[in-house]
Amino acid sequence: MTFDHDLKATVRTIPDYPKPGILFRDITTLLADARAFRRAVDELVQPWAGNKIDKVAGIEARGFILGGAVAHQVSAGFVPIRKKGKLPHTTVRIAYSLEYGLDEMEMHADAVHPGERVILVDDLIATGGTAEGAVKLLRQIGANVVAACFIIDLPDLGGAAKLRAMDVPVRTLMAFDGH
Amino acid sequence: MTFDHDLKATVRTIPDYPKPGILFRDITTLLADARAFRRAVDELVQPWAGNKIDKVAGIEARGFILGGAVAHQVSAGFVPIRKKGKLPHTTVRIAYSLEYGLDEMEMHADAVHPGERVILVDDLIATGGTAEGAVKLLRQIGANVVAACFIIDLPDLGGAAKLRAMDVPVRTLMAFDGH
Repeated sequence: MTFDHDLKATVRTIPDYPKPGILFRDITTLLADARAFRRAVDELVQPWAGNKIDKVAGIEARGFILGGAVAHQVSAGFVPIRKKGKLPHTTVRIAYSLEYGLDEMEMHADAVHPGERVILVDDLIATGGTAEGAVKLLRQIGANVVAACFIIDLPDLGGAAKLRAMDVPVRTLMAFDGH
Repeated sequence: MTFDHDLKATVRTIPDYPKPGILFRDITTLLADARAFRRAVDELVQPWAGNKIDKVAGIEARGFILGGAVAHQVSAGFVPIRKKGKLPHTTVRIAYSLEYGLDEMEMHADAVHPGERVILVDDLIATGGTAEGAVKLLRQIGANVVAACFIIDLPDLGGAAKLRAMDVPVRTLMAFDGH
């Protein structure tokens, strides 16, 4: 894990959003800063530079922004993991736990071929419920999940530890206390 | 406009989705193909290669994937244009017409500085209601909308012509008849 204070300073903290007592970490200010955005993408995939990556899977919706850039950076294809009912072809689907209940996500069943090397990308990992579901979905269709990459880690919530317990290498660029 | 038959062949057509009689153009197969994805990004921004672009604005959700990659390609910042209620800071908002009614989209009021050169990106342009709203939002906060780029044009529905009538240069990579 890299603690980069310059990059961290481009993240905007919004108090009491979406509800009182929550400090929301807003990465739109990082994304809007060309130098910070490029640096985040470069650093996220730096450990896999030179390794063949077949696909980058991004989680809807902020993971699409970062995932599109990461796929371009490593010359891989991009695979969207979406909320249920949004993909037009045959899908695989999984239920996952959110902070306030259950939801379902899905991906196209033919989006990854068995054995392909895949990097999972999202903006932030908190409890890890979404990322855990995404890893299970990817493995269900035979993907080799090489890594999961996030700009922000909220380590107190245990998501990165949960993924590592599933034998997924996790890379994050900065951490914030609590949530 | 470039008609690229190789690239076009990577788009999957799904009949009767989301309802009978509609031919849905599914770009997930293009995005999943590393070579096609890279080529689409390169060709989309080719006319502005070497020109300074400050920001790339992507429309939720598929425009995030492509927009993230385009921003990375031209070394610009990325700005999300989202469905209402999803952005945490002060926003500007606009109503726009969909095929089946009205909706609202918004962006952060400080996402673009006055005079900045912005490229708008989405996967497909049909009637152009969403793109027209996005251009108005961008101009409202002072952006210089240099171009609007889409992989797919459905010219029978008039969206590209609508944008050109607003003095926005439009670039698309392929066209399909009807919708």
